[in-house]
Amino acid sequence: MNYKLIVSYDGSRYYGWEHQPDKDTIQGRLENVLGRMCQREPSEMKIIGAGRTDAGVHAKGMVCNVVMDVDMTCDEILNYANHYLPDDIAVLQVREASERFHARYNAIGKTYCYTCYAGRVKTIFDRKYVTRLEEMPDVDKMQKAAADLVGQHDFHSFCANPRMKKSTVRKVDKIEIVQRKGYITFTVHGTGFLQNMVRIIVGTLLEVGYGRIAPDAMPSILEAKDRKLAGPTAPAQGLCLMEVDYQ
Amino acid sequence: MNYKLIVSYDGSRYYGWEHQPDKDTIQGRLENVLGRMCQREPSEMKIIGAGRTDAGVHAKGMVCNVVMDVDMTCDEILNYANHYLPDDIAVLQVREASERFHARYNAIGKTYCYTCYAGRVKTIFDRKYVTRLEEMPDVDKMQKAAADLVGQHDFHSFCANPRMKKSTVRKVDKIEIVQRKGYITFTVHGTGFLQNMVRIIVGTLLEVGYGRIAPDAMPSILEAKDRKLAGPTAPAQGLCLMEVDYQ
Repeated sequence: MNYKLIVSYDGSRYYGWEHQPDKDTIQGRLENVLGRMCQREPSEMKIIGAGRTDAGVHAKGMVCNVVMDVDMTCDEILNYANHYLPDDIAVLQVREASERFHARYNAIGKTYCYTCYAGRVKTIFDRKYVTRLEEMPDVDKMQKAAADLVGQHDFHSFCANPRMKKSTVRKVDKIEIVQRKGYITFTVHGTGFLQNMVRIIVGTLLEVGYGRIAPDAMPSILEAKDRKLAGPTAPAQGLCLMEVDYQ
Repeated sequence: MNYKLIVSYDGSRYYGWEHQPDKDTIQGRLENVLGRMCQREPSEMKIIGAGRTDAGVHAKGMVCNVVMDVDMTCDEILNYANHYLPDDIAVLQVREASERFHARYNAIGKTYCYTCYAGRVKTIFDRKYVTRLEEMPDVDKMQKAAADLVGQHDFHSFCANPRMKKSTVRKVDKIEIVQRKGYITFTVHGTGFLQNMVRIIVGTLLEVGYGRIAPDAMPSILEAKDRKLAGPTAPAQGLCLMEVDYQ
């Protein structure tokens, strides 16, 4: 049976989603626990994630699928997994999926949320999930610049991999920037994202907010297809994968 | 000058508020940073807290006072402290106080919040600030029992120290129990609290919620003045000192 899982995690202490030998990753942890459940080696568990999140990035709604041969209900699988997973990884939902369901190929959209904090009062309890800013950037300027990034573009300048051989054309449907009580949240929705793309978009918009890049510079940065013209990659800890869309 | 500070902390990795030799405590951390600021030894900094929080207990509004001889504004002190304190301790406010202000003697009330989670979905991001329950207790029963604890009583049965020599009479003004989305929060306000008193109240009310202690048993538990009749001490991590009241 092919199962679809929704997974949430605090990425702080992991080397990202994707399995790596001798590294602690979310996929690796899932392979261990589901392998134990299925009485298989972890390496036999083919868990397909909707995408990869980088080291330190969080998720509230990562989706993955895995074919398993177990005599258990979805609820039993969920309870088993949550019991054996560490307390910073949770399976939120287990559903039986069609044989052909593929968490990556079938994904048609993703929502990421990036949270910054520029308030005067030091916050304690969400410190691992926000990026602290020294001062408040100009949100109007960032919103103007963000509008020019929405749409279908070649995002080569916003990709961490300069030798990307496949197409770097992506469609971004929405970049919403909200300022509230010292927090700034960037909600980005698109059909797919390049390596570090959301973090480079946020890093570039923050440069605009601080007046170091002009608000009308986005079209020329896109056109140049040069990573060096965009801003720095914003830190991983402010980023969270919120949701993956399927038909 | 005597200064009043409001301090917030994630108590997870500390041995409580109070200074202890060779132990990492909140007061110890503050003594180090303020001592450095005043060019004094940490042991010379007499920081008076409104109370002591146990190991693992959090605070959003601990109050303390300290006499310091520095040529700095309150804002400068706040920024200095927050810069050098670790990221799980924050000074939220610094005010000049009257010479006679004493954070413990002048406190006339305290609000604690205790948070439990009994939802089906495993939560990740607040895992260090809530106590996980296996099943949802009966909130009506707990509210009935809590009503009998409100008022001025001898809380000897709810005190961790069986050899307490001073009076164990305390006044509890409010015990509010709210259930929402799998969370149960106990908000307790009183003029003062005995050692572990809030955690023993919560532990006892949970026993009522699970039907192991009768909802009408509180008067007899109070009257017996016997710690063994009350419930277990609820875990530290669900507790947070919210606010300290002064005239």
